[in-house]
Amino acid sequence: MQKKMTVSTGKGSIDHLSKNSFKDQIKEYICTEISSGRLKANNKIPTQRTLAAMFDVSRKICEVAMHELELNNLIFRRPGKGSFVLENNSRKVLRVKSHTVAVSVPNINNDFFSSLVSLLEKELFNFGINTIVSRSVCSAGEGKKYIKMFKEKNVDGIIGFTLSSLVLDYAMGNDIPVINISPAHTPATNNIIIDLEKAGRLVTEHLIGLGHEKILCAGSFPVGNKNSIDPRFKAVIDVMKRSKLPAEDIIIPQSSRATINPDYEKWGYELAEKILARKEPFSAIVFYNDHRALGAMKAFQERGFKIPEDFSIAGFDNAPMSRVFYPSLTSVDFNIGHAVRKAVKYLLDKQEGQTIYLEPELIKRASTGRLKHK
Amino acid sequence: MQKKMTVSTGKGSIDHLSKNSFKDQIKEYICTEISSGRLKANNKIPTQRTLAAMFDVSRKICEVAMHELELNNLIFRRPGKGSFVLENNSRKVLRVKSHTVAVSVPNINNDFFSSLVSLLEKELFNFGINTIVSRSVCSAGEGKKYIKMFKEKNVDGIIGFTLSSLVLDYAMGNDIPVINISPAHTPATNNIIIDLEKAGRLVTEHLIGLGHEKILCAGSFPVGNKNSIDPRFKAVIDVMKRSKLPAEDIIIPQSSRATINPDYEKWGYELAEKILARKEPFSAIVFYNDHRALGAMKAFQERGFKIPEDFSIAGFDNAPMSRVFYPSLTSVDFNIGHAVRKAVKYLLDKQEGQTIYLEPELIKRASTGRLKHK
Repeated sequence: MQKKMTVSTGKGSIDHLSKNSFKDQIKEYICTEISSGRLKANNKIPTQRTLAAMFDVSRKICEVAMHELELNNLIFRRPGKGSFVLENNSRKVLRVKSHTVAVSVPNINNDFFSSLVSLLEKELFNFGINTIVSRSVCSAGEGKKYIKMFKEKNVDGIIGFTLSSLVLDYAMGNDIPVINISPAHTPATNNIIIDLEKAGRLVTEHLIGLGHEKILCAGSFPVGNKNSIDPRFKAVIDVMKRSKLPAEDIIIPQSSRATINPDYEKWGYELAEKILARKEPFSAIVFYNDHRALGAMKAFQERGFKIPEDFSIAGFDNAPMSRVFYPSLTSVDFNIGHAVRKAVKYLLDKQEGQTIYLEPELIKRASTGRLKHK
Repeated sequence: MQKKMTVSTGKGSIDHLSKNSFKDQIKEYICTEISSGRLKANNKIPTQRTLAAMFDVSRKICEVAMHELELNNLIFRRPGKGSFVLENNSRKVLRVKSHTVAVSVPNINNDFFSSLVSLLEKELFNFGINTIVSRSVCSAGEGKKYIKMFKEKNVDGIIGFTLSSLVLDYAMGNDIPVINISPAHTPATNNIIIDLEKAGRLVTEHLIGLGHEKILCAGSFPVGNKNSIDPRFKAVIDVMKRSKLPAEDIIIPQSSRATINPDYEKWGYELAEKILARKEPFSAIVFYNDHRALGAMKAFQERGFKIPEDFSIAGFDNAPMSRVFYPSLTSVDFNIGHAVRKAVKYLLDKQEGQTIYLEPELIKRASTGRLKHK
């Protein structure tokens, strides 16, 4: 039988079996006082001496708790006068307990995702919060093990990119708030939606504007169901049809299925070989993401093709490397910087259920050029 | 005054003011029993029922503690029979408390460092340990803030790449074990040494073997003291002198100083422009790292130069992207995979003070070729 050991002195009480440290319990007490309205803006917080006596803990613990509440912008301190409640912040950081947030991306070792991790780490660090990294493309068992570890660490939340329903359900079932950046609405606490359809439209309109009429879509995963077309490629087909251009048989699926060890560049290299083997005319290729496009560019260049002279190439993600390659790659930016700021704000402000849509932006670079008739 | 609240029942006792959770205190108790020799290999561990009574906590807490000790390879469990001490593991995981390790790299958003983070995350995850990410290239204030946060989270240790003495001293002063992967011996708990001197030798011998006699070194930071040459470039000069080749005035420092927001590719691009502006003959360039080399390749290619036909290029790190570019980049691999396994082993086995040296390996790729006399 589990015994609840509760020390009660004055108003405060410490639950000795709680997984939270004494420090965090003191912080929660102050947060509750603020959110309930018992402590209002500019009201004085009980002194550390008072809190120490109330909770029967050392003053050092109270000192650390106060310091962290200050970092969270919940209170401010005036030397010699004490600590006070900050204005307009009463809703803030109520959820923050452990000052760690888990970040989950398909593949840490890919510059698009590592830049997302890097941006999140910097944003969270500004609020005194550490970032735990994890992989969202992993086995179901590993996914559950992650959630279990996060639960034990009492993480303040998970910010993920295209998290699976399985992981989402498991996290929500364990009362861990989840912010999911993904192309679809998911059962997450908050969704930040990437508009793949608009991204596909932007890149296709750009290519048609350059005179291209034979455009291929390369790198979707092989699917059994022909109706299940990725939204970015569905948009390419829609725009081409609307422009009265041929849109039949233009999707080149990759041979490799999804795996927990993706090698996008290798997949792109293989796609390039597959496209050249077809011997059917084309003048532009839209790749599923930038890294498949970069792998394909290498295959084309090794065979002596020139980009964009021989054909134009574009990708999605605006991965950092896409500007470094020669030629630099035309891509669609999803505005991940905005997603990062929003995701952290959702967590800290406890704005449950809200959704935002990211506005994609076409980044024109050297890999797409005007069609030359030979 | 801090009061020590100690509940003592039977052999076990829980320190209620310890920052460790009850679960971790039970784990520490079992670990101490094993390391002291009171519990030997294949000895049965007290049942969860016994532990729950000893420590006056719930059986659930004991269950979680046992589960984690099993994940740490300290014990094994036989359904219906109980838990037993694993052989040859009595020294293991004594240090593991919070099951989080901090990883600190100069720049999370660089594929060499993000692959290091990715490898560490996977290796640590196998031991049931989460990875907190942080930046080692940051202001001194931020560095101290990181250490403070790590201390509060009771991290089991820090694994870092080229951590500064300031951060190292501060971490060690806070009793946080640090494993530092770096070119030099540092005041860390363990050092994993990258042999830059041998790396420089390997690449220079490769280039001289291809017939190159005029080799430049590009991308060191601008220094006031001429005697302070980076070991990798010092090795280039030494090998060239030994081969009776001209080694005067071959180091091209970059214009930009070190910054907390490094842009290696941009620095490389600028270095290429600087080298072309010199108008002095050369046939090969060794860059400070792969990403400077990749940035420079783009500048050369934009100006119509062909690599390696016009000149050979090599880098250091064997960054993942170096195999993807066209042409693929010759580089020196530092065997980071071995460093990762060793770093985690040092932490888990508590092997303080030990040092290993990584054996660098030359990776020959398309960017270096035989000198053609024109």
